[in-house]
Formats: sequence, structure tokens, C-alpha cells
Amino acid sequence: MRMRGIVALALMVSGCAAGSAAAPSGPVFSMDEILAAAPPSDWRRIPQENLLYMTLPSGRVIIELTPIFAPEHTANVRALAAAHYWDGGAITRVQENYVVQWAGPEAGADRGAARADIEAPEYDRPVGDLPFMRLPDPDTYAAQTGFTEGFPAGRDGQGLTWPLHCYGIVGVGREMPPNTGDGSELYVVLGQSPRHLDRNLALVGRVVQGMELMSSLKRGTGPLGFYETPQERTSILSARLGSELPIAEQVQLEALRTDSASFATLVESRRWRRDEFFVEPTGHINVCNVPLPVRVAPPN
Amino acid sequence: MRMRGIVALALMVSGCAAGSAAAPSGPVFSMDEILAAAPPSDWRRIPQENLLYMTLPSGRVIIELTPIFAPEHTANVRALAAAHYWDGGAITRVQENYVVQWAGPEAGADRGAARADIEAPEYDRPVGDLPFMRLPDPDTYAAQTGFTEGFPAGRDGQGLTWPLHCYGIVGVGREMPPNTGDGSELYVVLGQSPRHLDRNLALVGRVVQGMELMSSLKRGTGPLGFYETPQERTSILSARLGSELPIAEQVQLEALRTDSASFATLVESRRWRRDEFFVEPTGHINVCNVPLPVRVAPPN
Repeated sequence: MRMRGIVALALMVSGCAAGSAAAPSGPVFSMDEILAAAPPSDWRRIPQENLLYMTLPSGRVIIELTPIFAPEHTANVRALAAAHYWDGGAITRVQENYVVQWAGPEAGADRGAARADIEAPEYDRPVGDLPFMRLPDPDTYAAQTGFTEGFPAGRDGQGLTWPLHCYGIVGVGREMPPNTGDGSELYVVLGQSPRHLDRNLALVGRVVQGMELMSSLKRGTGPLGFYETPQERTSILSARLGSELPIAEQVQLEALRTDSASFATLVESRRWRRDEFFVEPTGHINVCNVPLPVRVAPPN
Repeated sequence: MRMRGIVALALMVSGCAAGSAAAPSGPVFSMDEILAAAPPSDWRRIPQENLLYMTLPSGRVIIELTPIFAPEHTANVRALAAAHYWDGGAITRVQENYVVQWAGPEAGADRGAARADIEAPEYDRPVGDLPFMRLPDPDTYAAQTGFTEGFPAGRDGQGLTWPLHCYGIVGVGREMPPNTGDGSELYVVLGQSPRHLDRNLALVGRVVQGMELMSSLKRGTGPLGFYETPQERTSILSARLGSELPIAEQVQLEALRTDSASFATLVESRRWRRDEFFVEPTGHINVCNVPLPVRVAPPN
């Protein structure tokens, strides 16, 4: 693993204040090369109970749920999935350069164990002992940005953390405050990340497979990108937790651990684009531009 | 115009260091209200020679060309359009969360007055006397960000400026350096703005109408999002400069002047989301999240 030496050097450099660091030297590795060199321990298997498989006529979208930021909202999403709440529902809104939104209160009759209301606005939380791979780069919106258990996160430096509205992140639609949303209506971020929504809505996951099926949907022409006719909507054939599926229908996915050395190497390689295409490597990277690799687990 | 008083207050507040400003007070105006209140002098008519009408089977995409950052590349794009170079060409690449790219060297035989090569890498330029509506908000990539003649721009504070790879911005594809691209292959930014491309490619315009036709295209499944078969490509029926079109076929578009008071008001209203939906207005806005309104010119 000659690469490791380079990694260590790159990380030292990245510790400098943003803008003052010099470009690292040494061999240049592509993302594919970095991922291929990552040891098995740098990947984490995503538990099937954290995977929501949503089947559309065009194919399957898989969402990784995380309870760390909005545990009550995530629990409701899982309860609704277990009740097959979204089956027969639809994607009702595709707003250009903003969000795709689906289902809603009328989708299915059975809400299972889901609660009717969640009072707590789970928009940020105490840092506690959550890990944080912090980026040195300045950010427009948050005092600190980085990654916590595979998700982009912000911190205020005063004890609070929250997930970020980056491309592909899944959130809970809601009415006007104090309503916080019950999880029956979800959205995924599309386009330039709408970070002004941070700390204003509960985020519960991110799309880890099939995002291209969501992003290429026809845009709605009504206000806020809602479809104007039911015919324009995309049906949700089913939405299931992976833990409900027969093993043969599960997809065994692994995510690169954001607290791993390989991830740090990847971030550096994207901060400093040193391959020959670039004439002016920036030396910076925004938290929403960092790739969060997911792969089908290799056979044992 | 009671609104003006509020505007002045908001601007004073925004002059403070980012993060330290208090939310402005007073009435809250929506984007629609701000635009409706904008005097005619806050809008600029886009000259037809700066509009590129690209007709796809699904409809029409209109690009505003600007020569201010990459004059030679823009001149080549205009020469190729005048020669009807792109007619019968195709969209060849749609890479998820990155770019849509079209045509290329083989599209049309006639290159008209377009040059074969442009040696100058027009990736940044001296500030000169270009206007700059500067944002106070921190940015990950540039020392200063703001708007110059309707386009998002960065500055290094040492005399150089460059356009930014925000969503909807149009650039010139190129080979490896020192090649800078001849303008025959263009791309538009899709998804989270890939700002690491800033100062690495020539930018010549932005989509001002029909972006939803580009962003909803099926993603390519080949490397870099290229389509794997010709059948997947989207044909370009024609691409014309507005100045070539009969007046009846022209669309008279106006863009909100980025050096106007109305634009400053709009930016403030987006920095501080004070409507009742928001529980935590950020007090910040990223340069790529600022809307750049364009409308069909009202009748005289």
C-alpha cells in the first residue's frame, strides 16, 4: 500500500487554514483507485432495517435511513413503511432545481404504528459523542461542516449539530410551524443544495441508489412544481424496509466510512484536482460536493 | 414605494460581517412581490444577438450568451450558431448531478467564421471596470463572490475575476490542456454546482428558459454519463442566434439587473427567510443559490 504514505502527507497539508495550504505532491489517484485500495474495514454494511426500497415504474430507488438526527421522525417513516403506507401513492411534485416530493396524507389508509403528530422539531441536536470528520474549508451557511456517520453535517461550535440539505438528502415535508411533519410526505433534494432549509426541516436519510430516476422526472408546471394533473404523477408501486424483504430481494450495500482513512484520502483528492485536466486546482471542497461512495458488497 | 425604506435597512444590515448580522425587521415581501414592484429601469432587455435558441423535440431552450468573461470563445460560439453548426447534432452526455453536454466536432460540416482553435485560456480576466454586486457571505471556493452583469462571479481580491459554475451556467467543453475548446461542444451545469471547475473552463452563458428540459433528460449510463447508444441521444433540431430569427419568432426577454436596488432587495429576502415557514432563517446565502430572474418583457 504505497498510497498510504501519500495519504498521510495530504492530510497534514489539509490541516492548514483553508486557502493557505499548498497543493500536495506525489502520485495522483483517481476515485476508483482510492476505493479499490480501501480495506474492507473502511466500508460499513448498511443494515437492511435502514434501507427503504421504493419501486417506481422506471426502477428502484434505495434510501438509507438514519435515526441519528431525527429519531422520532425516522421511527415514523419506518412505521409507515412497515404498514406499506406509500404503496399506491405517487410522486406529486418535482420542482426544478429544488426537490422531488412524494405521497402524502392520503396515500394509504393504514398508518400502522406511526404516530399522528411529532411535536419535537428535530432540526438540530446536541453533538454528544457523535463522530465528526471536519472539513477545513469555509462554508456559506455553517460555522463547521463535515461528516457524521456517512451524512453531511454542520456544527455551530457551541454544541449543536444538524444534517445538511445536500443533493440527494431525504427530508420530511411539513406544514407551517409548529407542525414538524409526520413522515408521510417525503422529499429529496435536487439541484443546487438548498442549504437555507437546514435546521428548518427534519432530515431522515439519503438516496444511495437510483437517484437518477428521481432527478430525471418531468418537472411539474404548477406552483412549487406540483403536477397539475394526476396523470403526470409517477406511481409508487411499493416502498419496503429491506428487513421486510426476502434475502434474495435485498441489495447488500456498503458505504465508505466517513471516519476512515480512505475517505480522508478521497476528500483530499477531490479538494486538490491534480490530474492533468485541471489547470487551476482549487484547494477547496464544499461539503455538498464530496462524494459519499456506496457499492454493492463484494462476495465474501 | 414603502418597500424602499425596508430595502435600505436590509442593505445596511447585510453590510456587517457574515454571521454577526441580526435579522432585518419590517414587512416581508415575496420574490413575486419584489419583482412586481421593480421599476422598468431595474430590468435589462437581453439583446437578441446574445440569445441562443436551441430547439429540442421536447421544446425550446434559450441561452443568454455573455462575452464579458471569455470573448473569443463566445465569438466562436456565435460564429458556429450563425453557421447552423449544431443543427442535426445531439445531446450526447447527461451525467447525474454534474452536466448535460451537446454536439461536438462532428455535428455539422459548416463552421462558418469560427476559428479552429482558441489558444487563450479565457478562464479568468482582469477586473477592469466591470461592475460587481458583492455578497458579504463566505464562500468555499472564492475570496469574493457576487454578480457581474447578470452572471455569478468570483474575485480573488487581487485584480482577477471569473464566472462561476453555478446551476444552469453554460461552458465550453475542451480536451486536455493546453486545449481550451473551440465552442463546438457545450455543457450546462446540472445539480450541485461543481465549483471546482471554476477557472478551468471557459464559460459563455447561462440557460434563461427551458432549463427543465435539460435537467429532466434521461441520464447516460456510459462512463462520464455519455449515452451508450445513438438512439438514447436527444436531437438538436436547430440552434439559432435570436438576431437571425424573424421578429415574430423572437422572445423578448428581460433580466433583473444585478446592479439594481430590486436585486439587492431580492438577495436580502432570500438571505433572511422571514416568512412564517422558517423557524431558523439562516442569514446567509450562497452565490449559486441566488435567483437570477428573467421574464418575458411586458408590452410597452
